[in-house]
Order: sequence, then structure tokens, then C-alpha cells
Amino acid sequence: MLSLDKVFDAQTVLKSIIRETNLVRAYGIAPDCELYLKPENLQITGSFKVRGSAYKIAMLSDEEKEKGVIACSAGNHAQGVALAATKNGIKSLICLPDTAPISKVEATKGFGADVCLVEGCYDDTYQKALELKDSEGYTFVHPFDDENVIAGQGTIALEIINDLDNIDAIVVPIGGGGLISGIAYTVKKIRPSVKVYGVQVAGAPSMYNSVKDGKIECLSGVHTIADGIAVKQPGENTFELVKKYVDDIALVTDDEVASAILALIEKQKMIAEGAGATAVAAVMFDKLGLKGKRVVAVVSGGNIDVTNLSRVIDRGLLNSGRSSSLLIELIDKPGQLKEISRIIADCGGNVTGVHYEKGNTESVNGCFLRIEMETRDYEHVNLITQSLRNEGFNVI
Amino acid sequence: MLSLDKVFDAQTVLKSIIRETNLVRAYGIAPDCELYLKPENLQITGSFKVRGSAYKIAMLSDEEKEKGVIACSAGNHAQGVALAATKNGIKSLICLPDTAPISKVEATKGFGADVCLVEGCYDDTYQKALELKDSEGYTFVHPFDDENVIAGQGTIALEIINDLDNIDAIVVPIGGGGLISGIAYTVKKIRPSVKVYGVQVAGAPSMYNSVKDGKIECLSGVHTIADGIAVKQPGENTFELVKKYVDDIALVTDDEVASAILALIEKQKMIAEGAGATAVAAVMFDKLGLKGKRVVAVVSGGNIDVTNLSRVIDRGLLNSGRSSSLLIELIDKPGQLKEISRIIADCGGNVTGVHYEKGNTESVNGCFLRIEMETRDYEHVNLITQSLRNEGFNVI
Repeated sequence: MLSLDKVFDAQTVLKSIIRETNLVRAYGIAPDCELYLKPENLQITGSFKVRGSAYKIAMLSDEEKEKGVIACSAGNHAQGVALAATKNGIKSLICLPDTAPISKVEATKGFGADVCLVEGCYDDTYQKALELKDSEGYTFVHPFDDENVIAGQGTIALEIINDLDNIDAIVVPIGGGGLISGIAYTVKKIRPSVKVYGVQVAGAPSMYNSVKDGKIECLSGVHTIADGIAVKQPGENTFELVKKYVDDIALVTDDEVASAILALIEKQKMIAEGAGATAVAAVMFDKLGLKGKRVVAVVSGGNIDVTNLSRVIDRGLLNSGRSSSLLIELIDKPGQLKEISRIIADCGGNVTGVHYEKGNTESVNGCFLRIEMETRDYEHVNLITQSLRNEGFNVI
Repeated sequence: MLSLDKVFDAQTVLKSIIRETNLVRAYGIAPDCELYLKPENLQITGSFKVRGSAYKIAMLSDEEKEKGVIACSAGNHAQGVALAATKNGIKSLICLPDTAPISKVEATKGFGADVCLVEGCYDDTYQKALELKDSEGYTFVHPFDDENVIAGQGTIALEIINDLDNIDAIVVPIGGGGLISGIAYTVKKIRPSVKVYGVQVAGAPSMYNSVKDGKIECLSGVHTIADGIAVKQPGENTFELVKKYVDDIALVTDDEVASAILALIEKQKMIAEGAGATAVAAVMFDKLGLKGKRVVAVVSGGNIDVTNLSRVIDRGLLNSGRSSSLLIELIDKPGQLKEISRIIADCGGNVTGVHYEKGNTESVNGCFLRIEMETRDYEHVNLITQSLRNEGFNVI
């Protein structure tokens, strides 16, 4: 049974393994509220997951420890279990899909785990892990639906409450629900007046749907850049805890998540992964009515694949009107590029790319010009578009 | 005159303006030494610069404060002066080159400064600032060669010494020399046994050359991704202080800096700008013989333009063999791509791009195939290349 004693016990057990992450006051991300970040992206292994796994593993019997643990994951849970097992001096075997990026495989090995690559997707690794658990006697470490795992994540709430007084709300990403279950349970037992809100992405709203409909539901598919919380079905324990202790759940889009990642990079010099930026996105885009409030957003992890990072940054810039691209039909007349460049420069835009494209223009000799620009915001883009139109250019 | 009293006074004055940044233990970046980061990229304004400017401005007479301050900069100094002036309730005017990225102009305005865009480069903004200083009576805030600015930067040393005992060495980026002057002076007065090392980039070795030759020298040009320390000539005060208090200066290449930025992102979830990552690069690539030592590397700033970030990441991946690209000559025979894909997959490489390119192949019907791959390291790339050659492919 989950209890406050268990959460306090977890805090003691975890002291020598994890980092206590200090709240960071974030200016400029959500100017209308007093926003603090709980930077679990700066946690050992780059995510909060190590808290739950390490407490779960520390609580195993000697016999269980001797046989070792097994887990399946495509990401943060793998690294958390690997490090937690190694710190406890026991063996760990992690099943990863053979499509996992090399960087994640290497990181998991780097924390001391043996890795078993399984053909297929996450569900296949899960089946394989259960098979090996039965045949070899390993203890299976569930990524979220386990009371000791949940108690471990609850230690985050103890740190937040100890760090800052008079908090109005804590905003937490939801995947399977382990993180928010631990935080909400702990907060409501100690400071029941503090609101606890969950955030999911619109492409994977499993807990959101289940709570709304009052029963656990399974999504047929998930599609989001926040791969860390792309979970099809909530856990049984976590579903009950969320229903009981969480005040509300908001949804954010992938574009909002990309903008939040970009804001964390620019304003806080911090890397968050998609899942890690969802709570910040919810505050930034005012999904929870927290204007004027003192709010803590949990940045749950920072393990974004660097090869994806540039794509997310580009998306974020585009979304906020900071970069933009115009398609202009050119007719057969000299000096047009010069004229267009002048208009854009006069408006304060910064041309970063020019491409001529063939296409079905009105004039046979015409073509399309694609201009890429660095701009201030959408208003700025509109100003430039309007100025070009005023001087007779056909901006598509 | 610079004095320890001044540095302590600066610490008191700065308390309400700056963040005290806590040392972070960095694992995995330089496994052979006990590395700590002093994360001034997490400082307000994203760089240490605000410390020096804020102390300088606080020390102005009431008359000087009333007239306001002026500074020229293409980056961190601009934001530091802007915020420091605003916090002291005085006006600031910052001259920026009209080629400065929109994001930097907006950030400077965001901290409350008026911005004067000057046609040309940094040197032109400097001339313009001096003109306005004379005509309008503003106080000019020098980016580094000023005793109060240096005393402000020295507060970093007080925090480091207070945070960690038995430090063997502190490693510090050098541009104009203000940061390292403040740190080295303070450290040597309080803990003379701690070594203080400077780092410059090979493309802008102004202090390195000057110290080596025993006199201030001016570079004809600078070329580096570390734009924050691309300074042609050391200051007079900073040159003397570095000569007296700094133990040695190392040089790093732009490629080493890119690798350090990437390591900070992946291992620490932290954004550093080029200048900010130079000290880490020097430790990572063992330029100072610090194996087995307890070392603090100052990460001086995090204001990298996000549009440059992807390029730096790509460079870092390429440098470490984490991404790679092979050019293979194809002869006129079906099934070759299939064969090549199989060999790469068998070696554990992950194909991320395939392009056919025409070119001067031996056979008239031949062509070149460019394969982009995600790989573990150089050894892995060599293994794949060798396997392809063993099966008869001509890898260029």
C-alpha cells in the first residue's frame, strides 16, 4: 500500500543515489505567472525515472536482488533501472526494441546494464521481458504501475514543498501516471490546498480519456514528439490515484511542446525532451488558468535525441513566427529579386535563404521564388507580406 | 585599484541582482578527472557578464547615474549592461551592429535598454558609442578592461571556493580577459595553491600570443564559432593581471568546442555557447594535464543563437564519429543498394540518408552512392568501411 511513510522512506533511501534538484525561477516563459521549474532533466540519467526504479530495487529481498532485475523500455526507464541496479550492486537486463537509437543503447550499457535487443516495437520488448522473467527468475520493474515506483517519484513533491512556500499549483506531465500519482498523493497529504494538474499530449490522451469516461481505456495508437509519455493505457493503480488526487488534466499539441522546448533552450539554457516540456507548454499556453499564480512545472526529463533536436528547434521557430517562408510568383521581368530584397530589408526582415522553383505560374516564363527569413513574430511576417503585396507582388 | 575588499563588496552589492550558480558535478564528459561545472550559462541574462556590469553601474556617482550608461556589444555584454542598468533604475543605450541577429536585439530591448543599430561591425559600434558618450555625457561601460567590472567577475571565485574544498584547478575561458582576471586575482589571494588556467580558441589567441611574447599584441583577424571571446586585443589591466596570476593558457580548436557543446547537451542537458564551452573542451581533450585532479570548469555563457545550434550539433556528431557519411562507387549491376544496406546493418550501423550522385565514375553507367549513417564512434565507421571493402565495394 502507498503511504506517506513510504515516500519519506524513499527519500532517505534515495539520498545517496539521486540528485536533489533545486527549483529554478523561470522568467520570460510565461510572463503572466510566477513560474518555477523542477528540473528533473538535470537529474542523474537525465530523468526522474531513476527515483522510482532505485526505490523499487532497494526494497527487493536479498533473494530477489541476487537473481537481478529485468525491464523493458525505449528510453528513460531503461537508464533509470540500469543505474539503480548498478548502484545497488545487482544485475540488470534491459529489453530494448532493435530500432532504438544507438545513443540510447549505449547510454543504457554505460549505466551498467546488459541489453537485449528485441525485434519489433515496445510491445514486443514487453512480451520478451515477461518471458525472460518467468524463465530466468528476474524481478520485473514496471515503469509506473507499482507502489514502490510511485513512492519513489513522490519524493519530488517533498523536495518541491521544502524548497518553496505558498505554491498555488504544481503541473506534471502524465504518461503511464507514475510521476503524477506520486506527486499528487504526497502533496494532497501534506499541503492539500496546493492544486495538482496533469498534462498529456493530444496525440496520446490515454489518462485524459480514461478519467473523463470513468474507466481505463486503451488507445489504438499514439502519435507525438513526446515519446516519453506516448503510453496507450494508464496503470490500474495510477488510474485510481489520478482520479482521487489530481485536480484536472490539460492537453497540449506537439507544436506547443516544440515551442516550450525552444523557450527552455533560449530562456533557461536547458534541454528538455518532448515529454519533459509538456507541463511548461501547458503553463505557457495558459491551458489551466494559472495567470497571476505561483506555479511549479515539473520538467521530467531531458533525454532528447540530439539528431531530433534540430528538427524540434526549426519547428519551434516556425510556430512562433521567428522563422518564416514566403512563396512569391515572379513574372518575366528583370530586377525582381532586388526589389523583393529591398522591401524585406526595409521591414527589418533578415533573408536566410532564396530558392527559385518551377511551377504552374500564370506566365509561361514565370517561376516561383521561395524566400526564407528570420523574423520577430507573426505580426512581423504579416507586415512583410502586406508590404510585398502593396508593391504588386503575388505572395501565395 | 583592484582589491579583495572590492570583490567582497561586489558580492554584497550583487546579491539582489544576480543568481548564485551552484557547482554541478559532471560525469562522463572527462572521465579521467573529477570535473565540476560553474554554470554561468544559467546566470540571469545567460552569461556571467551581468556581474561586472552591475557592480560597475552600482558604483557610479548619482550624477553619472542620472545621465545613464552606454555600451557596445554584439552579445552578452549588451544584455548584462541592459539588465544591470534597469535594476539600478537608470537609462542604458546599447550600440549593436545592424547585422546582429534579431533575437539578440530583442533580448537587449527586453532587459530595458534602448538600442542603437550601427551600420558595420563591432569596431563601428565602438566608435559610435564613444561619440555618443562625448556628445551626451553617458558613462561608457567597458566589457572587460575596468577594475570594477573585473571585481564583479571575481565574485564567481568567491562562490566556487565557498562551494567546494580541495580544488586543484579552475579553468576559465579568455576573451578580453575580464573574467579570468577577476577569478585568478581572487583565488590567488585567498587560496594560492589552486591553479588557474585560461583557455582561448585557436582562431582568436590574442591573450595567449600577448602573454607568450610579453607584450600586448593585436590580431589582424579572428575566426571562431566562439564569438563571445573573439577579441582582437587584450585590455591593459587584464593583460597585467593574467601575466601575474594565471598559471597557463591552453588553446582549443573550434571542432573541440563543438564536441564540448554537444557533450554538455547530452550529458548535462545544458546549453553552452561556443565561448562558454571552451574551458570544458580544454579539460575534455586533456590540454592541461589535469587527469586525476579535482577541476572546476567555468561555463561562462549559454547565449548561442538557436539557428546556429543545429549546425554545431551536426559538427559535434561528425567529429566524434557519431554520424558519418560514406561515398561508394557503384558499377552497373542490380541489387547493390540491398547488398550495401545488409553489410551496414550487420555491422550495427543505422542508415539515415541515401543519395545517388552522378560523377566521373570508371564505368560510363556507374554512379556514386552517398550513405549517411548513425554510428557509435570512429572505430565503428572503420569497421563498416572495411566490411564494405572486403565484399568488393569501392569506398572512396
